[in-house]
Amino acid sequence: MSLPFPAPASEGLSQLHPFDPLTPVEIKLAVSILEKALPGVPLRYKRIDVLEPIKKDAVPYLDAERLGAPLPKKPARLLFSYFHRTDTGGFFKAVLNVGTMQPVYIKELPKDVQGPADIDELIEIEEICMKHPAVLAEIEKMQLPDGYTVCNDPWIYGTDSNTETRRLAQCYMYIIEVDHPESNHYSLPCAFSPVFDQVTKELVRIDQLPTGVDSTTQPTQPWKPVKCVHYAHDLLDEPLRTDLKPYIVNQPEGPSFSVSGHEVSWQKWRFRVGFTNRDGLVLYNVTYDGRQTFYRLSMSEMTVPYGGKYPSDPLKRIDSDKVEDPRAPFHRKQAFDAGDVGFGITANQLALGCDCLGHIKYFDGYRTDSKGNPVHLKNVICMHEQDNGIQHKHTNYRNNMATVVRNRELVVQMICTVSNYEYILAWIFDQAGNIEHEIRATGILSTMPMDNEDGAKVPWGTNVGPGVMAAYHQHLFSVRIDPAVDGHNNTLYYEDSVPMPVDEELNPFGMGYTSKQTVLKKAGFADLSVEKNRVFKIRNDSKINDVSLKPVAYKLHSVPSQMLLMSEGSFARKRAAFSEHAMWVTKHQDDELYAAGEFTNQSRVDTGLSEWAARDDDVENTDIVVWHTFGLTHNPRPEDFPVMPSERISFMLKPDGFFTKNPALDVPPSTQRFNQSTLHEDSCCSDKSKL
Amino acid sequence: MSLPFPAPASEGLSQLHPFDPLTPVEIKLAVSILEKALPGVPLRYKRIDVLEPIKKDAVPYLDAERLGAPLPKKPARLLFSYFHRTDTGGFFKAVLNVGTMQPVYIKELPKDVQGPADIDELIEIEEICMKHPAVLAEIEKMQLPDGYTVCNDPWIYGTDSNTETRRLAQCYMYIIEVDHPESNHYSLPCAFSPVFDQVTKELVRIDQLPTGVDSTTQPTQPWKPVKCVHYAHDLLDEPLRTDLKPYIVNQPEGPSFSVSGHEVSWQKWRFRVGFTNRDGLVLYNVTYDGRQTFYRLSMSEMTVPYGGKYPSDPLKRIDSDKVEDPRAPFHRKQAFDAGDVGFGITANQLALGCDCLGHIKYFDGYRTDSKGNPVHLKNVICMHEQDNGIQHKHTNYRNNMATVVRNRELVVQMICTVSNYEYILAWIFDQAGNIEHEIRATGILSTMPMDNEDGAKVPWGTNVGPGVMAAYHQHLFSVRIDPAVDGHNNTLYYEDSVPMPVDEELNPFGMGYTSKQTVLKKAGFADLSVEKNRVFKIRNDSKINDVSLKPVAYKLHSVPSQMLLMSEGSFARKRAAFSEHAMWVTKHQDDELYAAGEFTNQSRVDTGLSEWAARDDDVENTDIVVWHTFGLTHNPRPEDFPVMPSERISFMLKPDGFFTKNPALDVPPSTQRFNQSTLHEDSCCSDKSKL
Repeated sequence: MSLPFPAPASEGLSQLHPFDPLTPVEIKLAVSILEKALPGVPLRYKRIDVLEPIKKDAVPYLDAERLGAPLPKKPARLLFSYFHRTDTGGFFKAVLNVGTMQPVYIKELPKDVQGPADIDELIEIEEICMKHPAVLAEIEKMQLPDGYTVCNDPWIYGTDSNTETRRLAQCYMYIIEVDHPESNHYSLPCAFSPVFDQVTKELVRIDQLPTGVDSTTQPTQPWKPVKCVHYAHDLLDEPLRTDLKPYIVNQPEGPSFSVSGHEVSWQKWRFRVGFTNRDGLVLYNVTYDGRQTFYRLSMSEMTVPYGGKYPSDPLKRIDSDKVEDPRAPFHRKQAFDAGDVGFGITANQLALGCDCLGHIKYFDGYRTDSKGNPVHLKNVICMHEQDNGIQHKHTNYRNNMATVVRNRELVVQMICTVSNYEYILAWIFDQAGNIEHEIRATGILSTMPMDNEDGAKVPWGTNVGPGVMAAYHQHLFSVRIDPAVDGHNNTLYYEDSVPMPVDEELNPFGMGYTSKQTVLKKAGFADLSVEKNRVFKIRNDSKINDVSLKPVAYKLHSVPSQMLLMSEGSFARKRAAFSEHAMWVTKHQDDELYAAGEFTNQSRVDTGLSEWAARDDDVENTDIVVWHTFGLTHNPRPEDFPVMPSERISFMLKPDGFFTKNPALDVPPSTQRFNQSTLHEDSCCSDKSKL
Repeated sequence: MSLPFPAPASEGLSQLHPFDPLTPVEIKLAVSILEKALPGVPLRYKRIDVLEPIKKDAVPYLDAERLGAPLPKKPARLLFSYFHRTDTGGFFKAVLNVGTMQPVYIKELPKDVQGPADIDELIEIEEICMKHPAVLAEIEKMQLPDGYTVCNDPWIYGTDSNTETRRLAQCYMYIIEVDHPESNHYSLPCAFSPVFDQVTKELVRIDQLPTGVDSTTQPTQPWKPVKCVHYAHDLLDEPLRTDLKPYIVNQPEGPSFSVSGHEVSWQKWRFRVGFTNRDGLVLYNVTYDGRQTFYRLSMSEMTVPYGGKYPSDPLKRIDSDKVEDPRAPFHRKQAFDAGDVGFGITANQLALGCDCLGHIKYFDGYRTDSKGNPVHLKNVICMHEQDNGIQHKHTNYRNNMATVVRNRELVVQMICTVSNYEYILAWIFDQAGNIEHEIRATGILSTMPMDNEDGAKVPWGTNVGPGVMAAYHQHLFSVRIDPAVDGHNNTLYYEDSVPMPVDEELNPFGMGYTSKQTVLKKAGFADLSVEKNRVFKIRNDSKINDVSLKPVAYKLHSVPSQMLLMSEGSFARKRAAFSEHAMWVTKHQDDELYAAGEFTNQSRVDTGLSEWAARDDDVENTDIVVWHTFGLTHNPRPEDFPVMPSERISFMLKPDGFFTKNPALDVPPSTQRFNQSTLHEDSCCSDKSKL
C-alpha cells in the first residue's frame, strides 16, 4: 500500500544509524535526485535501497559505539537505484548521496544485463497475459465448466541461449476451480504457457507443455475435469480436527529483549536488525558480552534448478530411474529467489498470533513502486523468544542433586513467498553463544500437467494429485558470513578426524585417531566430508584462549548437502558456481554481497563467487568472508501436496574456544516456581503399575 | 528407595497388557520362582525384567485391538533374570513364567560373560575403594588442604586382553573441593586409578595416570592446588543473570493427549509407552489413524570409545595433529551405556517444572535391587506437548490471503545419567505423520589430570580448566527400528540422486539427473552418501499409494555421521561392529534387540549385528528390522566444561507416499483467538522508521 508521505526533506536523516534500513523519505529523495539529474526523461523505478556503508568507514563508528568512546563521523549515507528509461528501454544503475542530494554516478548497463523482477512488473505481465487474445483463444479451447476461471504465475525466464537479450517472462497457466481467494490453482495446471517480452509487452510465442510420459506435446485440448486438491481450511472435504487444545505462551513480565530503533539487546547479545529489498533480513554487528563475533550475517542467494532436456526416444529410459523434469520449457526453470526477485520484497506481512507464538516484536520495511512512491512493508520481520528444551543438565548420581538450565532462544524471522513456495528464514540466538540459522521450506510445489488417469507416471517427478505432477528439483542456498571473531582479521581452517595407521610403536592397538588442521590460505572453496568429520572454524590468530591455549574461534556446524546435480558446462552450473562447493572463502570487498553476482535474472554466467574466489587473494589472518552452500534435493512426496509440511534444515555458528567455559553457566536454574508447569493426573482406573 | 510391597500374588497380572512394563509384584514373583527352584542357594540379583512377548503371538492380539475385533489369548507373560550365585560366583540367566510360577530355563553362562553393572554393585565398589588402605595411602600422598576430600567413579573396565575373565572395575579418583552435593569433582581428577575385582572385592592394582604431554607416569605427588571449575549455581563466582523473564506455557483446557495405562492417544497417533531396565523408553505398536507404522522403536545401544595407545617416543608426534587420548589406562575406556549399565536404570527421576515445560505426564518404572526387592523409579519418562513453529504456510501473493498451521508436537522423553554424562533421549511426534528421535548430549566431560600450568597442551584433547584435560572421543548410537508400514512385510531400499552423463540425445544440455533405487535383498549393511543424497526408505510392496502409484513407504531422514575411527582389528571395532556402518537390516528374530549383543561388559567381540547380518537371510518383503548408526565425534571445546551445552542430533521417520496428501491439512488454522500472542509496543522515541 502507498501511504501519504510528506514532501521530501533530508532533515532528521542524520539521526539514522549507518545500518538502519531504507526510509520512505529517502525513497522520495532518491527520486528527486534522479529527476533533477535526468530532467524530462521518463523513468520507471525498479529498486531504490541503501548502499551499505563502506566497511573501513563503518568499523570505527561501531567500535566507538561498542567501547562507549566518542562517536566519529558517520560513514556517508548512500542509496542506489535500478531503473529503466521507458523511452529507450535502457537499464541503469545509479548511486546517490542523499546528504549532498547529488548522484555519485549514473550508468547504463549492457543490453544483456537484466534487473530483478519487481512487483509492478509482475502484476502488469500477469494482467497483459490474461487479456491477450491469443491466450484467451487457448483458454477457450479448454471448454472449462461454468464457474471455472484461469490465472497465471509469471516466471523468470531462465537461460538456454547465449544470444537472447530480450527481457522475457514465461507465464504458467492454471485453472481456478472456485471463486475463493485460496482456490489451489497449482492443482490444475494448464498445458500451454505464453512467453511475453516484458519491455515491449508483446507475446513472443505460446509453448505447449508435454502432459504424458514423454516430451510429446499437442494443441490445447478440452480440459478433462479432475478434482482440485485444496489446502484452504474452508475448501477441505474433511472436517477439521477437534482435539487440539490451546497452547498459550504467557510472558507476564514481558520479553527478555529490549529494542531501541533497530538495535536489539537480549541475554548478552547485541545486534542490529537490518532489512534490504534483496536480502530481506540482515543482521549487523553481532556482539556477545561486548565482544565482536560477526560483522554481517545474511542469506545471500538461493537457486532452484528444475531443468534438463528429455530424450526424444522414451525407450531409452530405464523405468526404475528418475530424472528431473527435463522437457522444454521446464529446462529453463532455474529461480534465483534472492537475485531474480528478492527475499525482502517477497517477505510476508506477518499477523499477530498466526506466524509466531508469545510476545512478538515486528519490524517494517519499505520499497519503491515503479513510479518512485514508497510502499510500506509492514511487519516483514518478527522477533520473539522461545523455549527449546534443556540447555544443560547434570545429576550427581550419588545424591540425585541436579542442576538444570533451560534453553531460552531469541528468534528473528522472515517468511518469503516466491510465487508457489514459502521460505521461513530464522536466525536463532541462544544463551550459550550459539547462533542457528534455520530454514523451513513450505508452500506449494511447482506443478506440471500430467495425464495420469490411466496410471501413468514419469521417472522425473511424483504424481501428487489427479492430472498433476511435481518434478524433482534442488534448493541450494548460499549464506554469507562476514566474521569478526574478536576483530576483523580472521582465518578459515578445517579440522579432519582421521584414523592413525596401525603401527607397532605409534599405535599398536589400532585405537588412535588424529585430527589434522588445514588452513585456507588463498581465496577459494572446499568441500565437506562427513567421513572425516570435517569441521570448519573461523579463528583469530592474534587472540589466545587462556584455557585451551589456542586461538579463539567460532566453528560452523554445517549442513552436509548434495551439491548441484547438473553437469559441468550446463547453464545451471555456469550461473550458480556457488552451488558446486559447500564452503567458500573470499577476501572482504565492499559490494561483494551476493553469491551468484549482482544480476542473476537471465544471467549466462556467475559473476559472484567464482570471480572473487579466483583473485588468488591471501585470506589468512585478514578480513575474510565465509560462504556456506547447502540445501535440499527435493524429490517430492504426495505428502508435500497441496501444501508442504515444513522441511527444516539448519546450520549453527558455535563458539569453539571463544569462551573459557560454558557461557550459559550464569543462566538461572530451571525451577517450578519460575516455569509453572502443570501435572497430568491419571484417571483413577487407568494406572495398572501398582499391580 | 524400596517400598513396602504386599506379599506376592499373581492375581491381577492377567490385566496387564503384553507390552506393559515390569511391575513390583512380578519382581517378587520372579524371586519366589528362583528361590523355589534353587532352594538354599545364596543368590544376588542383577536384573529382573519382562521378556518381550514373541512377535507371532503379540501381533494377532494387537491386530484385534486395532480393528476392534474380539481379543485372542494374550501371549504368555515371561520374565527374565540375570543373577549370581554368591557361593560359586557363577553368573546365570533364567527365564520365568509368572503365570505358571515355573522357570522356563535357568542356565549358567560361560566364565568370560560379564553381566551389566548394577546400582548396588557400583555403590559397593565405590565404598570399598574409598576404604581400601592402599587407596587411602595414595590419597594421603596428595597432602590435600583441609576440607578437601576424595571420591571415585567406578568405570566399566573395557577390554585390552583376550584372556581376562575377572569381573573388573576401574575407579577414577577425583578431589571434592567443598562439602556441597554438587561440588564438581570432575574438575579435579587424581593421577591414580585403582582396579578392583568386583567378585572377590580385592584390589588388583593401582594404575598411575600420565599427567603431562606423553605417557610418562610417576608416583602420586602432593597435589598442586588449582581452582575448581564449578557448575552448580550456588558455587559460581559470577552472579546469575537477572534479565531472563518468565516464559510460561499455559494449557487452559488441558493437554491434547489422553492416556490409558501405558497407551497414549494424541492427534491420530496411538502407541504404548514401554520401559525396560536396559532400553529405558521403548515405543510399541505405533499407529496413525488406525494404520500401522512401527512395531517397536528403541535406542538399542551406544558406545563411547576413548581409547588407543600412545607412542612411547613423544618426538614421533606431529604437533598440529591430535589423537584421542591413547595412553594407558584410558585406552580401555569404551562405555556401552545401554549394554554395560542400562538407560532404564540410569534414567533420572524427573521433577515438575525443571525438565519439561507445560502440562506434563510422567511414567514410572521398576527395577530389582541385589536382594530381589523392587525399587520404584518414579517419573523416569515424561510426556508433554510443545509448539515447534510453523508446520505449513502458503500466501496467495495476489490477495495476501494466507493459510497457516502451527506445528504442535508430542514429546516422550527420558534423561539418563551415565556417571559424568547426560543423554536426553526424546521421541517427538507431529501432526504430519513424522516421528523425530532427538538426542541431546549434556552433562560433564570425562576428564584426565593435566599439568598445564606451564602452558602445556596435548594433541589428543582439550585443556578445559586448570589441571584438567578432556580427551577426544566418539558417541555412536544404534537405534533399532522394527517397522510395520501397513503390515509386517516390509522392504528396505535406498534411492540415490546422480547426474546423467551428457549425451547428444539423452541429455544435450547436461541438466538431467537420475535417481536410482537399490533394494537390500539380503541382511547386511549399507553406508550413507551425502554426495548422492542417499535416502533409505521402508516400503510395503503389497500396498500401492493411489496418488503416487508406488508402494506406501516411510523414509529415514538419517544423521550423516563419521563412523568409528579405530582401526580394523582393534577391540573397539570388534566389540561394536554396528559402529562401522550407518545402516543395517536384519530379518526379525525375537530376542535380537541389542546392536552389540546381549552382553557387552568386558566383551571381546560383538555378538549382535555382525552375527545376525551374516546369516544371509532374505530381507525383501518380509519381517525386517532396520538399524541406524549415527553419532558425534566429540573433540571437546572449553565451552563444554564444566557442564556441556546440549549438543543436539536427530533423525526423522517421515511418510513418503504413505498418505495421499499432506496429513496435517485438517489441523485447524493458526489464529490469534486460539494462540493469544501479545504485541511488543515500541517506546515512543525509539522508532526512527518514520524519518
